[in-house]
Amino acid sequence: MFSKDTYVGRRQNLKKAVNSGILLFLGNEEAGMNYADNTYHFRQDSTFLYYFGLNKVSLAALIDVESGEEWIVGDEITIDDVIWAGPQPTLQEQAERVGVAKVLPKSQLESVLKSHLTAGRTVHYLPTYRPEHTFKLHEWTGQSLQEIAHGASTEFIKAVINQRSYKTAEEVIELNKAVNITAQMHLNAIRATKSGKYEYEIAGIVHGTALQGGGDLAYPIILSVDGQTLHNHYHDNRLSSGRLVLGDFGAETATHYAGDITRTWPVDKQFSERQKEIYQIVLDANLNAIAALQPGTKYLDCHLIAWKTIAEGLKTLGLLQGDVDEMVALGVPGLFMPHGVGHMMGMDVHDMENLGEQHIGYRDGLSRSTLLGLKSLRLAKELEAGFVLTVEPGLYFIPELIDLWESQGKFRDFVNYDALKDYYDFGGVRIEDNYLITTDGAQLLGNPIPKTISEIEALRL
Amino acid sequence: MFSKDTYVGRRQNLKKAVNSGILLFLGNEEAGMNYADNTYHFRQDSTFLYYFGLNKVSLAALIDVESGEEWIVGDEITIDDVIWAGPQPTLQEQAERVGVAKVLPKSQLESVLKSHLTAGRTVHYLPTYRPEHTFKLHEWTGQSLQEIAHGASTEFIKAVINQRSYKTAEEVIELNKAVNITAQMHLNAIRATKSGKYEYEIAGIVHGTALQGGGDLAYPIILSVDGQTLHNHYHDNRLSSGRLVLGDFGAETATHYAGDITRTWPVDKQFSERQKEIYQIVLDANLNAIAALQPGTKYLDCHLIAWKTIAEGLKTLGLLQGDVDEMVALGVPGLFMPHGVGHMMGMDVHDMENLGEQHIGYRDGLSRSTLLGLKSLRLAKELEAGFVLTVEPGLYFIPELIDLWESQGKFRDFVNYDALKDYYDFGGVRIEDNYLITTDGAQLLGNPIPKTISEIEALRL
Repeated sequence: MFSKDTYVGRRQNLKKAVNSGILLFLGNEEAGMNYADNTYHFRQDSTFLYYFGLNKVSLAALIDVESGEEWIVGDEITIDDVIWAGPQPTLQEQAERVGVAKVLPKSQLESVLKSHLTAGRTVHYLPTYRPEHTFKLHEWTGQSLQEIAHGASTEFIKAVINQRSYKTAEEVIELNKAVNITAQMHLNAIRATKSGKYEYEIAGIVHGTALQGGGDLAYPIILSVDGQTLHNHYHDNRLSSGRLVLGDFGAETATHYAGDITRTWPVDKQFSERQKEIYQIVLDANLNAIAALQPGTKYLDCHLIAWKTIAEGLKTLGLLQGDVDEMVALGVPGLFMPHGVGHMMGMDVHDMENLGEQHIGYRDGLSRSTLLGLKSLRLAKELEAGFVLTVEPGLYFIPELIDLWESQGKFRDFVNYDALKDYYDFGGVRIEDNYLITTDGAQLLGNPIPKTISEIEALRL
Repeated sequence: MFSKDTYVGRRQNLKKAVNSGILLFLGNEEAGMNYADNTYHFRQDSTFLYYFGLNKVSLAALIDVESGEEWIVGDEITIDDVIWAGPQPTLQEQAERVGVAKVLPKSQLESVLKSHLTAGRTVHYLPTYRPEHTFKLHEWTGQSLQEIAHGASTEFIKAVINQRSYKTAEEVIELNKAVNITAQMHLNAIRATKSGKYEYEIAGIVHGTALQGGGDLAYPIILSVDGQTLHNHYHDNRLSSGRLVLGDFGAETATHYAGDITRTWPVDKQFSERQKEIYQIVLDANLNAIAALQPGTKYLDCHLIAWKTIAEGLKTLGLLQGDVDEMVALGVPGLFMPHGVGHMMGMDVHDMENLGEQHIGYRDGLSRSTLLGLKSLRLAKELEAGFVLTVEPGLYFIPELIDLWESQGKFRDFVNYDALKDYYDFGGVRIEDNYLITTDGAQLLGNPIPKTISEIEALRL
């Protein structure tokens, strides 16, 4: 938790950015796993944390933009709460810690909102991603479930994005911590890798390391010899000699800032020659994209730089042929890198994704491509100082996708489908780092993590 | 996953137990953590797993009790699914693996259910614990959200409980595995304990060990020097000399069977004399309750045996006074053990809790007590062969609760409130094991885990 002044200041700026009405913030509830009381670990809503800092279950908050008044909405604890969950400060004390003077019992929230609505005032809320919030808004506002699904306030959304997109110095400190815990997760994973072990054994070490950092995972662990599967949460494969392990995982700090790093390393202590060839192409793509990071550069262009580097590398290997710029323009590299080169990162690993990516990563005059790979690019617009983002080019040989394109006759002039057959057992490589855009360039978050071939191999000596 | 015959046989028995209508099974969806696509680890619904075995997201199933027909409801994978989540068997192949002949696209489920309802047939569904299921039932049946909340089929619920309550040999094998992974989690935690470390460091090791067993946690880790807080999921305390650590955690196997073990150990390598006194009382309660396990015994009586042992022990220490049986009848030991002595365990750590505990742990003529402690007893009825349960007496010094009772003047004749003040910094002790009720007694699940004072201390040598 930051200081009271931080939260007060953030809310002051927010109030200036919205013209009128009531801002409603919904904190998260516990989420039942296999029954209501067997819960997943609690994760507070990031926007609620950003403005109110309170990492407690079942809270809400209100800001009256016109009067400036603020309320934390919640219930005081009972003796049963003390027995089962321990003594806690009162709600009033918690509210005061973040500079909010008033508290409101949950039971009164509905009537307060309804009286504002009856008086013709606007109740602004953000898009919901937990179904119980849709429920509540339905009950409180009288809008249908369908209306709630499309009823979020664009004015509120844009005001939040306009604050959360620019990371402050105290946020960058937390992000550096997150990346450094993440680095330790990677080092532990790489050092524990050994032929014969199961993926879940390494994943267990990785998750344990995140928890030992005082927070938890920022997102589900991807750790697989099937690196060609982009979001592979299956960890039951056995590590075998000759394969690569792709590890994409990151820690969330106790203050809820994310790290998001990918490294790829061999099951064996050293890369094979073929692995080195592919790995070096991805590393070049990573370095070339990073070299282009600066305010004013469209992140779409960083994506295209990565694609171009990959196309050039594959051309050298004889897997592609023809004009590289033409291939990039047509989307040929999407066959090998069918995802975006990166995304905003902050309290959410895909920062603010719940608020709608069209507002975060695009702008008027810049809309999303439909090309495979580019259609998944979450951040395309011009970079600005204070943005924090990931740079994560990858190169994968996905047999099902290659077969599909071949069967459709796609890009036969460019793609050497016959030669690709030799790579069907290769898997994939992704190399990802986290950067802060500065006023004149970009700054690596966290301490450097081994990523050249020799650095990775040196970890296994 | 068990054999096809297991699932076919379970469904055959279920069909015999329900008279008529359509049984609707809702598999679980992904659950978004801080935005829709950043998900908690997927946990399939246990009843869905029990009858259909398929550990996949976004499935449902139907059984027509009268015609005997069965359907798996879901969608076939797309090339985007392959790219992001990897190649998978077709839905038809998955259905066949568990002996279901037919599949139905999700888009058709609503019209199928509506045509059954229009024809006057009953659609049986189970209680929901995830809000999106309540939503769906609302859309599909036309019932209001309130009606859905109370509309589950008692006939269906009772039929499921009547099967899942009796664990088969192949289930007991999985339960033994779960307890053995859980044992390793405890041994690693106890051995890693050291003054100066943070609780979350030990909790990280514990969680990592569960994952390395190929499954995950069965429930959120309780690991705290504040053992007097019963469900303490806060892990930010520092371990300090003179305190006890209470660890209540368990693994879930890859096949989704739970272990649930509690051990209590000193931060120091040895228990202090005062810790030994309290620990031995709880160990005696644990052993006495276990000695009473056999078919026909009410589990309520095992609870009372534990309470009586605790009251006797505290009387010896001068913290209680008067007639022990009277104290138990009045609920005085609830001050020290304000929870139940145990619960059913199986695929859910509180097995089938979502189906309603009145059907699982109680029966006609046996209703829940309102006494503190007894009101939390989840299983009270007569034990039967095949039941699997936890035995988990505990003894806690909860300052806020003691102060409350004293201020209310409760049981002044029995409780030596003055002497209790010396124990306000003690914390709590709980000792929990898992048992299978057999035809003539009970059998410990898993290999024995150190639990006597000397056994626990020997782990730190």
